[in-house]
Amino acid sequence: MDRLKIAILGFGSVGKGLAKIIADKNLGIIITAIADSKSGIIDNKGLNVAKVLLAKKKTGLCGDTSITPQKIIETAEYDVLVEVTPTNAATGQPALDYIKAALSRGKNVVTSNKGPIALEFKSLQKMADENNCLLKYEATVCGAIPIIHALQHGLAGNKIKKIYGVFNGTCNYILTRMSDEKLTYKQALLEARELGYAESDPTYDIKGIDAAIKLVILANTVLGFDKTLDDVEITGIDNMSSDAIGLALEDGKTIRLIGEIDAERETLSVAPRILPKNHILVVKDTLNAVTARTDLAGDVTLIGKGAGSFETASAIISDLLYIKENHGGRN
Amino acid sequence: MDRLKIAILGFGSVGKGLAKIIADKNLGIIITAIADSKSGIIDNKGLNVAKVLLAKKKTGLCGDTSITPQKIIETAEYDVLVEVTPTNAATGQPALDYIKAALSRGKNVVTSNKGPIALEFKSLQKMADENNCLLKYEATVCGAIPIIHALQHGLAGNKIKKIYGVFNGTCNYILTRMSDEKLTYKQALLEARELGYAESDPTYDIKGIDAAIKLVILANTVLGFDKTLDDVEITGIDNMSSDAIGLALEDGKTIRLIGEIDAERETLSVAPRILPKNHILVVKDTLNAVTARTDLAGDVTLIGKGAGSFETASAIISDLLYIKENHGGRN
Repeated sequence: MDRLKIAILGFGSVGKGLAKIIADKNLGIIITAIADSKSGIIDNKGLNVAKVLLAKKKTGLCGDTSITPQKIIETAEYDVLVEVTPTNAATGQPALDYIKAALSRGKNVVTSNKGPIALEFKSLQKMADENNCLLKYEATVCGAIPIIHALQHGLAGNKIKKIYGVFNGTCNYILTRMSDEKLTYKQALLEARELGYAESDPTYDIKGIDAAIKLVILANTVLGFDKTLDDVEITGIDNMSSDAIGLALEDGKTIRLIGEIDAERETLSVAPRILPKNHILVVKDTLNAVTARTDLAGDVTLIGKGAGSFETASAIISDLLYIKENHGGRN
Repeated sequence: MDRLKIAILGFGSVGKGLAKIIADKNLGIIITAIADSKSGIIDNKGLNVAKVLLAKKKTGLCGDTSITPQKIIETAEYDVLVEVTPTNAATGQPALDYIKAALSRGKNVVTSNKGPIALEFKSLQKMADENNCLLKYEATVCGAIPIIHALQHGLAGNKIKKIYGVFNGTCNYILTRMSDEKLTYKQALLEARELGYAESDPTYDIKGIDAAIKLVILANTVLGFDKTLDDVEITGIDNMSSDAIGLALEDGKTIRLIGEIDAERETLSVAPRILPKNHILVVKDTLNAVTARTDLAGDVTLIGKGAGSFETASAIISDLLYIKENHGGRN
């Protein structure tokens, strides 16, 4: 195809960042529709992104209140639906319905939304296969790190024995500050909030749930398992004491929240672990780090930023360009 | 295509490792021809790999002395020529002629051979494009680390500003041992030789030439530059003194041989650099580590084994499976 046409559902920081990048870069992609939770806009010849961003800033709306996500899915011209609405980890909605509606119309889908992929990957992939379209989700795990691409393609042919690492930047920031600056858990959490690394309700991150959801996604997508959040043994960092960190430090070690998939035992776990300070997974601040243990390539580790609007957009764009390259003949 | 047919030229540790893995794993790949420097064997229905390996072990030959690489290229049935003969960095031969002959016949090529890709990537890629076939070379840089795949696909859409890191496992081993165990350069080199990490003539590694060639390959393939080895400013580690390492250590630092491509200045360099001991690129022993600095994803670092027959085979297999997936309709 000459230019890939995309419709974006969700116009928060990720959606806006993505639109900005696509308008700025010459990627052969045009945006034909955008919706936020209250409004939408369609132009099948390609939207004026600067104008939509300005309207959103001024009015809080990206377009007309009569144009809903459903209307965009059903009536706009697009090759790929980009679903970047906020995650609901319990139900996956409304994203799940949007994705299903697009796939059932034979449209490719790219999403950064953990809910639908963690909850219903198998049925969504089946729907994509039946409708001869692609479902891509690189942005759901570890932001800018192309971990899913590396595991599915870069290490193709390898047997993956284990996947383990630091999957949550908020927890890693808190543990880094407790270890390096001897802050208490409360001080470090407060600091993370002030810097925008932790949400006002940080439960999801600090209890290890966010990391666990990412493990479920990797287990089901890359390893073909059929896991749910209930299958993950989870210990968060909300009970982490300065004493525990201090004891680790005395021994030349530190503590990180490590998620692990043992592919041979088919077990998933998230828990704080004591690691040597020079361990490859002891990364600083909000970084993520993932090691894949394989039969041929040995251990391969990827380290990078796990969050951020441009970082997430980077993952979405790599998926879009993959679709452009691999699905060119169809639309 | 149902099964991908490959012909292997070169039957040293990489070729043998690759053949073994393909025979053992159900990857949908069969081997129809194998040649070493003295002999060759063809079976268009698929060779009995165990038998060829046994013959090679017993007689030093993999087949008949009348079957040359040229004969295989011209007469065997194969979808992909896998070129894994020893590297000649000065001329690229005989690999260069083999690759050209296969491409001109419209055959896909996968190679682990740095010579041809460093010397003539542009003309080879042009030949591949003109003949509507694929040229893949993941194994030429950093062994098991899927760095080329990550840069070309995983981070697609990003502007790469810099690529820098540890590209030579032999030097990294020597520097690790000098730093951690206070060995002299001579002691560390001797140990590396005894462990098979350094060749009897280690010039190529310790003078930084191997790392420089990898930079040339990345610059030309991933960034579209047109560089040669002469464009790389190179300082090796052969003059590294224990005093220099000691001074770095006193300051909580260490020394690593870092290769760097500055994509904005279009400069390539290899030199020992002083780094904090907890720097992300301070990896141990023979590991390789590469950071890509990008506009959207920020810094993404990949760490893994840079050499070894199975590790190199891992990279070759990912290329073969890429061709299987992306070139299926043609052969």
